[in-house]
Amino acid sequence: MNRRMVGYLMAKLFFIEAGLLTVPLITALIYQEPLKNTSAILLTMGLLLLLGGLGLVLKPNNHRIYTKEGLIIVSLCWLLWSFFGGLPFFFSGQIPNLIDAFFETTSGFTSTGATILDTTKVLSPSLLLWRSFTQLIGGMGVLVFALAIMDNPQNNHLEVMRAEMAGPVFGKVVSKLKNTAQILYLIYLAMFIILALILWLAGLSFYDSLVTAMGVAGTGGFAGYENNIAYYNNSLITVIVSVGMLVFGVNFNLYYLILLGKVRSVFKNEELKLYGLITLIAVVAISININGLYPSLKDTLEKVFFQVSSVLTSTGFGHPDIQPWPLFSQTLLLLLMFCGGMAGSTAGGFKIMRVLTLLKLAKNQVLSTLYPNRVLTLNVNGTPLDNKTQQSILKYLVLYLMVLSGLILLLSLDNDNFLIVASASLSALNNVGPILGTNDNFNLFSPLSKIILSFVMIAGRLELYPLILFFLPKTWSKT
Amino acid sequence: MNRRMVGYLMAKLFFIEAGLLTVPLITALIYQEPLKNTSAILLTMGLLLLLGGLGLVLKPNNHRIYTKEGLIIVSLCWLLWSFFGGLPFFFSGQIPNLIDAFFETTSGFTSTGATILDTTKVLSPSLLLWRSFTQLIGGMGVLVFALAIMDNPQNNHLEVMRAEMAGPVFGKVVSKLKNTAQILYLIYLAMFIILALILWLAGLSFYDSLVTAMGVAGTGGFAGYENNIAYYNNSLITVIVSVGMLVFGVNFNLYYLILLGKVRSVFKNEELKLYGLITLIAVVAISININGLYPSLKDTLEKVFFQVSSVLTSTGFGHPDIQPWPLFSQTLLLLLMFCGGMAGSTAGGFKIMRVLTLLKLAKNQVLSTLYPNRVLTLNVNGTPLDNKTQQSILKYLVLYLMVLSGLILLLSLDNDNFLIVASASLSALNNVGPILGTNDNFNLFSPLSKIILSFVMIAGRLELYPLILFFLPKTWSKT
Repeated sequence: MNRRMVGYLMAKLFFIEAGLLTVPLITALIYQEPLKNTSAILLTMGLLLLLGGLGLVLKPNNHRIYTKEGLIIVSLCWLLWSFFGGLPFFFSGQIPNLIDAFFETTSGFTSTGATILDTTKVLSPSLLLWRSFTQLIGGMGVLVFALAIMDNPQNNHLEVMRAEMAGPVFGKVVSKLKNTAQILYLIYLAMFIILALILWLAGLSFYDSLVTAMGVAGTGGFAGYENNIAYYNNSLITVIVSVGMLVFGVNFNLYYLILLGKVRSVFKNEELKLYGLITLIAVVAISININGLYPSLKDTLEKVFFQVSSVLTSTGFGHPDIQPWPLFSQTLLLLLMFCGGMAGSTAGGFKIMRVLTLLKLAKNQVLSTLYPNRVLTLNVNGTPLDNKTQQSILKYLVLYLMVLSGLILLLSLDNDNFLIVASASLSALNNVGPILGTNDNFNLFSPLSKIILSFVMIAGRLELYPLILFFLPKTWSKT
Repeated sequence: MNRRMVGYLMAKLFFIEAGLLTVPLITALIYQEPLKNTSAILLTMGLLLLLGGLGLVLKPNNHRIYTKEGLIIVSLCWLLWSFFGGLPFFFSGQIPNLIDAFFETTSGFTSTGATILDTTKVLSPSLLLWRSFTQLIGGMGVLVFALAIMDNPQNNHLEVMRAEMAGPVFGKVVSKLKNTAQILYLIYLAMFIILALILWLAGLSFYDSLVTAMGVAGTGGFAGYENNIAYYNNSLITVIVSVGMLVFGVNFNLYYLILLGKVRSVFKNEELKLYGLITLIAVVAISININGLYPSLKDTLEKVFFQVSSVLTSTGFGHPDIQPWPLFSQTLLLLLMFCGGMAGSTAGGFKIMRVLTLLKLAKNQVLSTLYPNRVLTLNVNGTPLDNKTQQSILKYLVLYLMVLSGLILLLSLDNDNFLIVASASLSALNNVGPILGTNDNFNLFSPLSKIILSFVMIAGRLELYPLILFFLPKTWSKT
């Protein structure tokens, strides 16, 4: 473990977070918020700059880092950014409990959107925007962002990138890491700006369209009001947000392919097809299941499409509508929570690509029992998926299930409703946000559970390995 | 598909079931039951003999059967034995609904022990014994039993045996199939008789000790009274049954090894160690969780040990005590339901051997992220587990989860409590029996759900593949 290099990079990351805090700072000045808010933000920035300065003093001689260090930096970044990012809420008194502030900010940076706030009214415009802004940063991965804009002459961050990449990405678009990150980020930011503009044109205020678009783009799900998107009571906004969530749940490499004019290969993409198919089946099945609950078919479809899109893409804009839905619909939403969006998107969850691989594996397994002597290959998008990738997906499933079971068990100490406990666990691990079976939020859990849930959100966002290694004593040994 | 050979073997199996029905027939005569009961049994026997006779006429020229035929015979045997085995309940009017009779008998032959009866009082002594007897037959596998005692000069039933073997059995004790089956069955029957004797000596009536021992030996969980073992309100009986269930959840090959004097290798067995460890952890954790619910520690331990042993071994003697236990205990029981007993035992579930392999795989996977260049082997009981076996366990997990998710989704159409739906699904698929979160039984589900659940019990008992193949049209093609 090259600890000095880890510390050095963390110092740089502290500077970046201090820089990001200028966004709420400027907002506080524009909205002429009380001195308490501005000073809370400034105090946090000061702390970060101080720690960053101290870290830079430890400039290492050896700049080499390997997988291990990469995974640790990623874990540390998410943990410490969440901790320090939560301080303005705490210092300003808007979230008076430090654990709650940490939970809320972790939820933002992991683009989960799970909240402990009964009402968003306690947040001033600057800190409400900061909360939403953390999702935009977290969405595509704090580290990719950080590394993409960070001056790094030695370009030895490949391993950090590998730890960061969301989902199993088969087929690299651009070989040079820095370029890939920059191009994907440009696409991401461009799409975010377009979405904010559309929402603004559709009638939202400039501030609201920014907050909403940040929730959608990061597939986070923090909204500006208690009732979430339902607050606007506007079909057009609901549809724009529903489609927007699905768009941000698509593998960003596909958008790059479209820019390159390779539209045909995009429409042949099997993961995209399955993503569409799952959405369609879920919308139809739930619409039939809740038939009669709403006055018109248009109403039903609008609400169901919104909810399916929200849960599948792990955005998780909560919605008071969902509470009276029958158990079948809730169970289907739980399964969608598990699936998550496409690999290489801002979405969390197990990822459609892995689900696709598992479906194909299961089919092959059944066929091989029927035809024991036939050699069956597993093709995805026309190319065979090698054995190693198949195995790593299967083993990821095992780890995932272990973490999920453990979490459900721990949370069941805190609550007596199995649907609440199971959905809160899936929601946190897959970075979705809402809890099924209740209109309550994560405030119903104890402080200890909130800390555990925060770590689980990070574990889910980083696809488990980085955070598991973080807790292994062996990882930290010097040799 | 050698359909004629399949039909021919089924005909033989019909004769065997007719023979087995002499047990309730004699019981009915001993207890001088009304003519309605005796004639219901005789009518069923007549039907079976008629069908068996018709099948024998179709004597095939080609006796060769392969995996495919083996798997189909196993599926058919369980389905048809359950259907015909349910007829005495239906004909006698003791279970007036044919679907209910099918469900109850399937539950017996698959040694699930799930019931649709609100009270066992509706059953006469003969049919109550028949219901329990189906578990004894089903426990070690109807087919192994049938083949072991069936005259079979060509000895080409290896494939049937392979489909039948419970769990991944690593290390064959005896190479000749027929001998293995016979030896394991002798051990099984001897242990059953010893258990029945112990229960009799402990104070149960002769009839009750038979019924109870059949429920334990088959790890089924059908009891003679509504309140199950709690009816006796006798600590000694509770402890005997608790230990008995654990004993029948052990891999029977280990008992054979003990008979051979290889005691040392038994105590080194890793699956046995994990089985013990899981039991210990579950008993301690639940005892702490329900602390204060019962007057004394002895009371607590007795009830918890009984329930842990019952659920882990997939016996599933229901117990009214469990209802007020907090969600943590119920969730832990759900996890135990998933684990199941050891491979090669009469228990259902995913099997401890598979759980052990998954735990080791997960550990290796984490270590390989830490040390990417190290080659990690996976040893079980000192010998490396080959890649193919590892993969087949992983793929079995995938199929298992798909069936489980689908079942939960289907049952959620029938009930609005997620714990009930999830536990009923796990209970049926793992052949356990009780439902958590309610004192109701499977009668709370619709007739359609009961049919689906019956098929799922068989699927779980046969470890999925045979029944999946049964429903594939391709399986039935002539070529």
